[in-house]
Amino acid sequence: MPKTNALPLIGPPATAAVAPCCPPLTERPFTADEAETAARMFKALGDPVRLRLFSAVASHEGGEACVCDISDVGVSQPTVSHHLKKLKEAGLLTSERRGTWVYYRVEPSVLAAMGRLLTIAPAAA
Amino acid sequence: MPKTNALPLIGPPATAAVAPCCPPLTERPFTADEAETAARMFKALGDPVRLRLFSAVASHEGGEACVCDISDVGVSQPTVSHHLKKLKEAGLLTSERRGTWVYYRVEPSVLAAMGRLLTIAPAAA
Repeated sequence: MPKTNALPLIGPPATAAVAPCCPPLTERPFTADEAETAARMFKALGDPVRLRLFSAVASHEGGEACVCDISDVGVSQPTVSHHLKKLKEAGLLTSERRGTWVYYRVEPSVLAAMGRLLTIAPAAA
Repeated sequence: MPKTNALPLIGPPATAAVAPCCPPLTERPFTADEAETAARMFKALGDPVRLRLFSAVASHEGGEACVCDISDVGVSQPTVSHHLKKLKEAGLLTSERRGTWVYYRVEPSVLAAMGRLLTIAPAAA
């Protein structure tokens, strides 16, 4: 029996995937649950130090960075670790230990989901 | 002397204008000043009640709403007012008194600026 020729899966590439959250903020009033989920993501970026760390990871070569690459934001290393943990908890970063260092990487689907929230619906613009 | 014929100002339409803030988070590490500005906007949406109110205004007919339209989020009216004030301070809403009511409207340029922050640069995706 010949091997089944699997049809290629049709869908957007992985980097365009959007985390299941919420419609654009301009589309309809959010429910309490949607607001909880979305607020958690916004809150994670609502701190200047966290935002600098996130930006440092997001813009680093290859889209990932270790703590050694990004600790130049004027706060102590424990504070850096604390903020990176918060960003992980919010689903904005993932991490992986390789040898001595933990490497952080941006989760593109979450960025895409947040971007979608801020889409301006034509009727509301 | 004839009146000067003023040339029309050339620029993007008001709804497409982007508040001067910051490049995409994935483009390069943010400076401290950029992070302060951008974090203020994210923080404003980092609260579930604020996010519901914002979404209620943003999705309301004509893109504006008065407190009477949007107070159905399970908190007291003073709390609603407090959150609307925070959204105004962050530049996300503008308000205008008309008769008895204050009407709130989404500031599209700020939404656009926040959306731009979350754009994924091709190299980082």
